[in-house]
Amino acid sequence: MLDVAEKELAEQRLQEVTEALSRGMYVLARRQLHNLPAWDIALLLESSPPKARAIIWQLVDADEHGDILEELSEEVQKSIVRQMAPEKLAAATEGMDTDDLAYVLRGLPEPIYQEVLKSMDEQDRQRAEQALSYEEDTAGGIMNTDTITLRADVSIDVVLRYLRLKGELPEATDKLYVVDRQDKLIGEIGISRLLTVDPSRLVEDVMDADVHGIAVDMDETEVAKLFERQDWISAPVVDENDRLLGRITIDDVVDIIREDAQHSMLSMAGLDDDEDTFAPVLKSTRRRSIWLGVNLITAILAAAVSSLFEDILAQMAILAILNTIVPSMGGIAGSQTLTLVIRGMALGHIGSSNQRWLIGKELAIGALNGVIWAVLIATVVAVWKQDLLIGGIIAFAMMANLLAAGLAGVTVPLILKKFDIDPALAGGVILTTVTDVIGIFAFLGTATLLLG
Amino acid sequence: MLDVAEKELAEQRLQEVTEALSRGMYVLARRQLHNLPAWDIALLLESSPPKARAIIWQLVDADEHGDILEELSEEVQKSIVRQMAPEKLAAATEGMDTDDLAYVLRGLPEPIYQEVLKSMDEQDRQRAEQALSYEEDTAGGIMNTDTITLRADVSIDVVLRYLRLKGELPEATDKLYVVDRQDKLIGEIGISRLLTVDPSRLVEDVMDADVHGIAVDMDETEVAKLFERQDWISAPVVDENDRLLGRITIDDVVDIIREDAQHSMLSMAGLDDDEDTFAPVLKSTRRRSIWLGVNLITAILAAAVSSLFEDILAQMAILAILNTIVPSMGGIAGSQTLTLVIRGMALGHIGSSNQRWLIGKELAIGALNGVIWAVLIATVVAVWKQDLLIGGIIAFAMMANLLAAGLAGVTVPLILKKFDIDPALAGGVILTTVTDVIGIFAFLGTATLLLG
Repeated sequence: MLDVAEKELAEQRLQEVTEALSRGMYVLARRQLHNLPAWDIALLLESSPPKARAIIWQLVDADEHGDILEELSEEVQKSIVRQMAPEKLAAATEGMDTDDLAYVLRGLPEPIYQEVLKSMDEQDRQRAEQALSYEEDTAGGIMNTDTITLRADVSIDVVLRYLRLKGELPEATDKLYVVDRQDKLIGEIGISRLLTVDPSRLVEDVMDADVHGIAVDMDETEVAKLFERQDWISAPVVDENDRLLGRITIDDVVDIIREDAQHSMLSMAGLDDDEDTFAPVLKSTRRRSIWLGVNLITAILAAAVSSLFEDILAQMAILAILNTIVPSMGGIAGSQTLTLVIRGMALGHIGSSNQRWLIGKELAIGALNGVIWAVLIATVVAVWKQDLLIGGIIAFAMMANLLAAGLAGVTVPLILKKFDIDPALAGGVILTTVTDVIGIFAFLGTATLLLG
Repeated sequence: MLDVAEKELAEQRLQEVTEALSRGMYVLARRQLHNLPAWDIALLLESSPPKARAIIWQLVDADEHGDILEELSEEVQKSIVRQMAPEKLAAATEGMDTDDLAYVLRGLPEPIYQEVLKSMDEQDRQRAEQALSYEEDTAGGIMNTDTITLRADVSIDVVLRYLRLKGELPEATDKLYVVDRQDKLIGEIGISRLLTVDPSRLVEDVMDADVHGIAVDMDETEVAKLFERQDWISAPVVDENDRLLGRITIDDVVDIIREDAQHSMLSMAGLDDDEDTFAPVLKSTRRRSIWLGVNLITAILAAAVSSLFEDILAQMAILAILNTIVPSMGGIAGSQTLTLVIRGMALGHIGSSNQRWLIGKELAIGALNGVIWAVLIATVVAVWKQDLLIGGIIAFAMMANLLAAGLAGVTVPLILKKFDIDPALAGGVILTTVTDVIGIFAFLGTATLLLG
């Protein structure tokens, strides 16, 4: 039975390898690695610093290399294949599914990848070149060419005999495809249907002719949505003339769904999709510094706005002390709205028909929250600093900023999308800039008017 | 062919219904809805404000209700089933898969759910009661009971004849399960194997006896990980005595993977997993106000820290103006680390063996980034405010805070996890509190020492 105990055992086995490695007991580690499934070795590589990765890779059986590469994330895979000799890489990728093969080769610099192609046997090279001819992140890039095709005019009995001769079906085969002489997709038959139908009938009488292949250039995110919607296990891919090119299986789609869902979270922190937690320090620093640079500019902008009110700040230190509260609350409220809108857009829930309603709703929430927190902060300030007027000023600024946060939380991602900019990536910075500037203006501006 | 044109057509059809609804042309809308697949109607409901939802639900064919309910997210489904009459709900859920049935019933208040159970026919009620006996979010909660079981001592030929008699197999059936007289799971056969094997052989000679059922109480996130790892399409669920209870199919697992991946993003903004973008204003306000309340406390805490340095702030307004820059940069740098660590923990990449390495790495990044941005901000301040000393002070504070951010970004989620608190939910607030307090202390404290 697969239960928690089983999982703990697996974790313990990984722990043991790590320990053997850290003690330099490489013979023991090699034996332990030999007994681990490819998936666990992949996990171990993902969880290891760069140096340990190189050692583990050396200790792993070479005939496991291909299976492990398939399970690795893009960044880690890249860092490993770039250190492999072309012949070894050609050997490791032998017999790989076409989509995995293309994925590995795309991670290599041009000259090396030409060498790997040269080291492959003729058949593998042809498959690789074909797979590489489709764009990454499209249906073509994630399809396999291991489809089983049938002709319409044969009987099910013939099909059954053919399959028995063939011996084994490719993984995740739930359907066979029916094509005409030009390879045009004209129907499909579920293999469970083959089991239950009268064997004397013809394929064309049994097949489902209402079949629509996925266009080979369709974006993989759209492909994933179709799978989720139709509960597919596999689906055929066709060219512009409806000729069958291959099929996509659910296991690749699951990867896309997970990556797409993580994309928003990572982008909102200014991180790359395939950011590697254990990448070398210099690489990570370079990647993250872009985002810090953008933030420094917005922070200086906010300081410049405060700078406009230097006179009143010089007069009353209490304003300086309270100046961060309103922008901070605006930033949080705006991020909540922004996050919901980004998710809603990804799920296809937000369109032209409900945008106005949504803006109205978020403004109403902003107003309501504005009143609640305005009253609260005014009370706190009045009690803490014994100053009713400043309590009133901060309350007004809070109201104004939470309204602005609601409005910006909806409109910023909508506008960014119109300009084809990823709202998850740029939305947060723009939003907090808006709430910082409005928060400071509302608080220090009103203070200048009433107290200056 | 399924391509972008097809997608645009679907969007246009949805747009037409929305238009008919907004113009009050309900007869037209009813006809349009009649032609839409359940999935599209679910999408329309998800994308509509509460009032429109109620109208759409009234216009939809009652015999589509069940299919639509299955496709809805938890929050929206709940809001709809709570307004349905118990008999209608009993009718809508007739013949639903057991896992979906339990999911719907769990959304109801106790008395209504008893009434729905009463309105069901005997068979459905039994299925429902059994499904409800397993805990939500476990293997039992997402399994179906539509397994096909075989005995070990019959021939494949008998199995094939049995299946032909049965006519149709349940959806996503890729395996048949072999059980003994006590219903104990002893093997499985892929249906593609049934097609290719010699029919005269016995089930026990052909079956894969190395089969491990999933424990019925396993957490659904663990189930999803197993599916991803093994590339399963379906898997058997067993009780503590290895008795077969049902099976889990990939379509339900895909939902879990998407929800789990979204969970972190929503939690980091203090939002609920099943937060409904179009929920009523009052409900949304209440949900979001908790997070704003927590943030107000931390904002006041930061203000209180600034308040300790009131003397120096009163002397030099420029410190007040620059006071937000260092905390802001610390918050961003810390969030980047935090986000990566939260993702790494979810993927199982971070454990006791690499924590120390990771802290070292993030401290090194903090130091490196610290130097870069310290030099930059010092230059900006020196040029802008013509003050070298304050430039030096802010540079020092930046260094200190980016180091603190790297350290807190790794340790805060690790500590929270030890106390079984969701780091995605609480991590951000704690982290920014740390970077705010340290940022302010480092900047204003040093200023007090050197300038006060």
